[in-house]
Amino acid sequence: MRRDRLCVIGLGLIGGSVMRAADSAGWTVWGATISPDDHAAATADGFAVESTVDDALRRAAAQDALVLLAVPLSVVDDVLALLARHAPSCRLTDVVGVKEPVAGAVRRCAPGARYVGGHPMAGSSASGWPAGCAGLFDDAAWVLAADDGIDRSVWTDVAKLALDCGASVVAATAAEHDAAVARVSHLPHLLAGVLASVGAGGGPLALALGAGSFIDGTRVAGSRPELVRAMCEGNRAALIDALDDALGRLGAARASLASTGSLESTTRAGHLARRAFDAAHGGDGATLQVDLTAGTAFERLREIGRAGGRVTALHGTRCEVVL
Amino acid sequence: MRRDRLCVIGLGLIGGSVMRAADSAGWTVWGATISPDDHAAATADGFAVESTVDDALRRAAAQDALVLLAVPLSVVDDVLALLARHAPSCRLTDVVGVKEPVAGAVRRCAPGARYVGGHPMAGSSASGWPAGCAGLFDDAAWVLAADDGIDRSVWTDVAKLALDCGASVVAATAAEHDAAVARVSHLPHLLAGVLASVGAGGGPLALALGAGSFIDGTRVAGSRPELVRAMCEGNRAALIDALDDALGRLGAARASLASTGSLESTTRAGHLARRAFDAAHGGDGATLQVDLTAGTAFERLREIGRAGGRVTALHGTRCEVVL
Repeated sequence: MRRDRLCVIGLGLIGGSVMRAADSAGWTVWGATISPDDHAAATADGFAVESTVDDALRRAAAQDALVLLAVPLSVVDDVLALLARHAPSCRLTDVVGVKEPVAGAVRRCAPGARYVGGHPMAGSSASGWPAGCAGLFDDAAWVLAADDGIDRSVWTDVAKLALDCGASVVAATAAEHDAAVARVSHLPHLLAGVLASVGAGGGPLALALGAGSFIDGTRVAGSRPELVRAMCEGNRAALIDALDDALGRLGAARASLASTGSLESTTRAGHLARRAFDAAHGGDGATLQVDLTAGTAFERLREIGRAGGRVTALHGTRCEVVL
Repeated sequence: MRRDRLCVIGLGLIGGSVMRAADSAGWTVWGATISPDDHAAATADGFAVESTVDDALRRAAAQDALVLLAVPLSVVDDVLALLARHAPSCRLTDVVGVKEPVAGAVRRCAPGARYVGGHPMAGSSASGWPAGCAGLFDDAAWVLAADDGIDRSVWTDVAKLALDCGASVVAATAAEHDAAVARVSHLPHLLAGVLASVGAGGGPLALALGAGSFIDGTRVAGSRPELVRAMCEGNRAALIDALDDALGRLGAARASLASTGSLESTTRAGHLARRAFDAAHGGDGATLQVDLTAGTAFERLREIGRAGGRVTALHGTRCEVVL
């Protein structure tokens, strides 16, 4: 029985962690990176790193590997151009934080690739191969695009990779994904940066007094700003919607504080929302099975994703879902 | 040689932690609370809890104890009325998160008390006696109001308490404190609530995808909303200034994203600010001594506080400062 094969392009925090996790789960894994530091570090840790991205992709074509792009959005087009040359009809996924722009790039640059977009919701403010680990995706949600017309067999392969890495799989359309992460990932990065700036605007005394709420609220402002920019700017329309929602709520809080002096509705709504989040990540709900060969399977998976459900296991073409 | 004596009114997270820490440091400590749960829990842990606040304050007057108010701002006036009756000229401090309103309340309700306002910058989203611990203030900043006309001997007593609890002391005027904490404590609570609400506005899918940046950015929205309200509403003017700063920066980010598509200045400023914060809390700088009996001692301490410096030890009336 042949082992699953994975070719990882980009060996930073996420790519490097997928490489380790897939290797631990028994996949045959190789990779490539244009970062000399990551190349040296991954090689030193005993992983197979090809000399060039071209070499890694040629090997992927020869051995029918699943290719995973783990590079910033800004270089996706360049890597896809190489992929179109060396492995034009390969099975392809990615871990980029926005899904519609990458899907568009694949249609434009590598239209023969059998692409299913992915996004593991895990990370840290550190970056590079040394920051990664095999356990990074344990219990994380890993979104897989489940738009109409998806290649079901590739979707199942990528779902197996995500599950083998310890994650559970959330099905959503690319557009639904982008709208959701604008709210729960991109906006938090912007707010963290703004909060850090407002704190620093208070001078050394304010910074000296920053503790728990300031440390937590600004943590991701420590991330590399070029990665934050690329992520947020790549999701422009959805992020503007999320920003407008935040500006509206903050403006309402400001108006209420200035007029009546009350922050009751702001604090109550925020507290209830955070409790809803905790409940959503609390104990598991009902479980059910979805047959991936059924005609409405992906429609059903999208409904489950919208309701906050996750795929937690695959048995052939049957998947197990927790609501 | 008499032991230091401390009477703690309010045995929640902060009051209960001061009680434990001061006890560990050798102070004679007793307290009182109107919460039956905290009363029972503190008593069960072996601490001296008087039956009523009146009793605790009478004992404070009889034994010349330092009185520490660890109650929400909303009940400060009520406790001060009891204090004016039972211990009208006691040495008094507090741990309330805003300093000008409490100073005003003392002038109004207990004008004979020798009051030095305090605020330890430590906490958690949990509350009540069981959430506290003796180590809560280790390495925390504990602000002590150092306005003109302060009673130097009481200031020194309260500084000793803060240092004995493991904190270092930051001197600032009440107004400087309130402006700084609006930026690094009250604004973070508002942003956390707004972020939680925007996330929940994305429905169950968005909540299911919330991970590191969302968890950290919304953590303090889990705090009891009535405590957040009391804290934020009590610092209205300074919080409006901080909110306007945040709204201006977010509005600029929104405008830039919508027009040029760039978030460069927002992300760069936020990253530099967070690095400035890390640097401010990094390795210790120069040390120096301040003689608290010198005429300009408190002017000097305020300058040191504005520069981000802290008092780390007391030797009689000399204090050691780290810049």
